[in-house]
Amino acid sequence: MTHLAVIGGSDAGISAALRARELDPTVEVTVVVADAYPNYSICGIPYYFTGEVAPWQSLAHRTHADLEATGMRLRLNTLATGIDVAGQRLIVRDQAGVESMIAYDELVVGTGALPSHAGIAGLDQLGPEDGVHVIHSMGDTFALDRHLTERNPTSAIIIGAGYVGLEMAEAFAARGMRVTQLQRGPEVLSTLDPELAGLVRTELEDHGVDVHTGTLVAGVEKTPTGLVVTGTRNGQSVTHTADLVLAVVGVRPNTSLLEAAGARLGAGRAVVVDEQMRTGLPHVFAAGDGIITHHRLLGTTYLPLGTTSHKQGRVAGENAIGGTARFAGSVGTQVVKVFDLVAARTGLRDQDAAAAGYTPVTVQSAADDHKRYYPGAQPITFRITGDTTTGRLLGAQLVGRLGTETAKRVDTFATALHAGLTIAEVSDLDLSYTPPLGSPWDAVQAATQAWTRSVPALIGAPA
Amino acid sequence: MTHLAVIGGSDAGISAALRARELDPTVEVTVVVADAYPNYSICGIPYYFTGEVAPWQSLAHRTHADLEATGMRLRLNTLATGIDVAGQRLIVRDQAGVESMIAYDELVVGTGALPSHAGIAGLDQLGPEDGVHVIHSMGDTFALDRHLTERNPTSAIIIGAGYVGLEMAEAFAARGMRVTQLQRGPEVLSTLDPELAGLVRTELEDHGVDVHTGTLVAGVEKTPTGLVVTGTRNGQSVTHTADLVLAVVGVRPNTSLLEAAGARLGAGRAVVVDEQMRTGLPHVFAAGDGIITHHRLLGTTYLPLGTTSHKQGRVAGENAIGGTARFAGSVGTQVVKVFDLVAARTGLRDQDAAAAGYTPVTVQSAADDHKRYYPGAQPITFRITGDTTTGRLLGAQLVGRLGTETAKRVDTFATALHAGLTIAEVSDLDLSYTPPLGSPWDAVQAATQAWTRSVPALIGAPA
Repeated sequence: MTHLAVIGGSDAGISAALRARELDPTVEVTVVVADAYPNYSICGIPYYFTGEVAPWQSLAHRTHADLEATGMRLRLNTLATGIDVAGQRLIVRDQAGVESMIAYDELVVGTGALPSHAGIAGLDQLGPEDGVHVIHSMGDTFALDRHLTERNPTSAIIIGAGYVGLEMAEAFAARGMRVTQLQRGPEVLSTLDPELAGLVRTELEDHGVDVHTGTLVAGVEKTPTGLVVTGTRNGQSVTHTADLVLAVVGVRPNTSLLEAAGARLGAGRAVVVDEQMRTGLPHVFAAGDGIITHHRLLGTTYLPLGTTSHKQGRVAGENAIGGTARFAGSVGTQVVKVFDLVAARTGLRDQDAAAAGYTPVTVQSAADDHKRYYPGAQPITFRITGDTTTGRLLGAQLVGRLGTETAKRVDTFATALHAGLTIAEVSDLDLSYTPPLGSPWDAVQAATQAWTRSVPALIGAPA
Repeated sequence: MTHLAVIGGSDAGISAALRARELDPTVEVTVVVADAYPNYSICGIPYYFTGEVAPWQSLAHRTHADLEATGMRLRLNTLATGIDVAGQRLIVRDQAGVESMIAYDELVVGTGALPSHAGIAGLDQLGPEDGVHVIHSMGDTFALDRHLTERNPTSAIIIGAGYVGLEMAEAFAARGMRVTQLQRGPEVLSTLDPELAGLVRTELEDHGVDVHTGTLVAGVEKTPTGLVVTGTRNGQSVTHTADLVLAVVGVRPNTSLLEAAGARLGAGRAVVVDEQMRTGLPHVFAAGDGIITHHRLLGTTYLPLGTTSHKQGRVAGENAIGGTARFAGSVGTQVVKVFDLVAARTGLRDQDAAAAGYTPVTVQSAADDHKRYYPGAQPITFRITGDTTTGRLLGAQLVGRLGTETAKRVDTFATALHAGLTIAEVSDLDLSYTPPLGSPWDAVQAATQAWTRSVPALIGAPA
C-alpha cells in the first residue's frame, strides 16, 4: 500500500491529496498542515473583511469532515522541518515542539509562498500587536480581525496595490475606514497597462480611497500618534500616518524545505519542476506557489496563482501514485473585482511579449457589453496584444463594470491563447449573441477587429 | 469603378456593403432594400414589446444617415424581382410599381428567410387585421404594435416556443397579458435537451405563462368570441381561444430570386455557396439566412442566425470586390434570455453528433457560478457532449440565472469547439478566477471534469 505524504494544506497540497485518493482509494494519504485551517480559500479573505462572508469558517473550500471523508489523514498544526530524501521520510514538529518522522513512499510538497517585505524597514520588527499586518493565512486573518474589532481603527495605509491590496482597500472602505493606498509603480494594478489600470484607480478614488502612485515606501514606524509610513514620491520625502498598516507587496516562493533537500531553483527563485511536477529528487513532487510556472507563451516563469496551484496539485497527486499527467501550462489569466469594476488579463502585454521574442503590437478599444438599445449597456475597454509577424493572439486586458460578463469574456481570450489562435481567428469565432447580453460581433471581436484594422498603420505597412 | 449591388438590407446585405466600402472606398455600392428599414436589429424586436426599448428607431444598428455616410447608396422600398445573371443586372420594382434595371459588376444576395407556416391552416388567410401575427420584419412589428395599442388584447396564444416565441411570451407577460404557449415538441426550446429546456419551461410557468408542450396545432380560425387555435395533444383534440395569435414556428430560406437565376439548393432547401460565399453563378455571391451554413463539426447544414449572417455578409462583401476571405464556419452557438434565466448552447447534442458519425456521450452536472461563500452564488446546469473515441468536445448546453455569466461561459466552449479541443483540454484551460465571479476550477471545468469522471462507467470501460 503506497503512502503518499503531502506537505501543505492549501490549494496545491489538498488538490494533490484529493486527486490521489480519487484515483486510488487504496493509497494512504497524510497531509501535513502547518496550521489548523486546511483547504481555506485565501482568495476569499478580503470578502470576510468586507462583511460579505460570514462566518469565517465558510471560507473553507471543504470542511475538515469533508476532507477526512475522502480518506486522507490530516496532521494539523504540524510543521515539516526537513525532508530526508534518501530515507524517504519527513521530519515534522507538532504544536508542543515534539519532533517526529513520517515515512513516505511518495511526497508532494506544496509549501506555497511567503509575504514579501520588499526591503521595507520595520516590517520585520512590527507585527499585528503593533497594528502592522500581512494577509496570507487564516492566522493573519484572525489577527487583523481582532485588531479591527477590538481597537476599531479609523484609518489604514495599504502598502501595495495589487489584487489583494485593492480588495482590502474595498474591505476597509466598506467598514468606513479612511484608506490610503501606496503604490510604487506609476499606476495601481501593475499587471495591467497603465491605460487600463488608470480606470481602476479612478474607481478606487470614486469610493474615497486616497491613492498615491509612484511612492517608494522606505519604512514603517510605530509612534505615539500612530503608525508612520515614510518614503519618497517624485524625489520628495513623504509621510503618511494611520491606525493600521497592511503590507501587501507580493510574495516569494517558500522553498526552504526543498532547497535544503537539494532541489534546484529557477525563475523567481522558485523550485524547478518538470511538467509532471517532478522536482528531480527521487519520489519528490512539488506544486503551487513555491514552484516555477510552465507558461504556454513564455516557457517557464514564476506566476503564483490559486488556479494554477489547483491544477499543478492535481497533476502532482496523479503522478505521485504512478500517473503520467502533465500540467498544460498557464497563460497568466487573472481577474479582480474592485468595487463595481472588473479588471482582467490573460497572456502577455507588449513588454513581456517583446522580451520573449515576439513582435507585438497592442491596440486599445472599447465596445458595449450588449446592444446599446437594451437597457444597461456599458462599455468594456480592451487592450489586445498580437504578434505582427504571425498574427497570433498574445494577450488581452479588459476592464468593465460588474454585470458586463468581463470575467468570462477574458476566458474566451484565455481559451484562444491556449489553442494558439490568431487574432483573425478570434474575430471568426461563433460567440453567443442575444441583445441583452451581447452583440452580433461580440465586444471581444470588436476588440480583435480594432487590432486588425489598426495594425497596418501602426507598423507602417500598407493598409 | 466597380459597382457592387446588394439585395437585402438586413444583417448579411449591410455587412457585405459595409465591408466592401471599408476595404475600397472607390467601390460604388447600391443596396436594394424591400422596406424602409435597413440594418434593423430584428433580434431586438421582442424588447420593443417588453417596453425596454424605445423608440423603435433605436433598434437600428446604424441610422440611415450612418449608412449613407459610409458611401453606400440605399434604394429603399424597392423589391428585387429578378436577376439577369448573363446581363449582370437586377430587375427591381419600386413602391409605385415601376420596374427598372440596376446594372452591376458584382452582386451579393442577402434575401434572408421567411416565416414558416408549418402547414397550419388559416395562417395563409388570416393576418394582422384579424389579430394573427408573425414577427419577422419592422412591418410585422408595426402591425403588432398597432394591434396592442389600439385593441388592447388581454390574451395571446403563441404558436411555437423557440427563441423568438419565448422572448415574445416574456414581452406579452410584461404587458400584463395572459399568455398561452403551444409547442409541438415534448419540451420548449427544442434546441436544448429536454432536461435543460424543462428549466426554461419552469421559468415561463413561474411567470404565469401557460405552456402546453406536445401540442400539434392544426389551424387558426377567427370566430366572434376570439381567435381559436385547434389541434391535438396526446391524441386528444384541444382548443385554445385568445384575442391575439402569434405564430413563430421557424423560418424557411427565401431563395426564389436565386433559384430562378439558376442557383443550386442544398441543406434545408437553402442556396448552396462555397466558404467564400460564391453561388457558382458568375459574379453572384450570397450570404445570410437564405443560404446553407458551413459548420465546423457537421460540414454543411442550415442554421440561420444573425451572428452567422454578419460574418457571411462580411466575407461576401470582401470577396465581391476581389478578396479571398473564407467563412470560418459556425459551431451553432445560441443564447436566449427568458425572464431571469439564460439558456445557451453550442456545438452538437447527442443525437446530432451520433447522426454525424461521432460516438457521443452527454453528461449533465451543475456547478455554482462563483464561490458559494460569496453572496449570490447560483448553480449553472450543464450538459456536455463529447466523443468517447477521441475525447473531443462536441457540444455544451448551459442554463443559469441572469448574472451568472452563462452567456459568455458558453463562449469558452464555442472557442474550444472552433479550435477542436478535447474535453480534457477544456479542463486544463487557464480560466479566470476571483471569488465573486468564479471558482478555482471554473464551473465550465467542473462540467468537463464531470464528463470525464462519468464516461468510463457510461461506456462500460474500466474506470
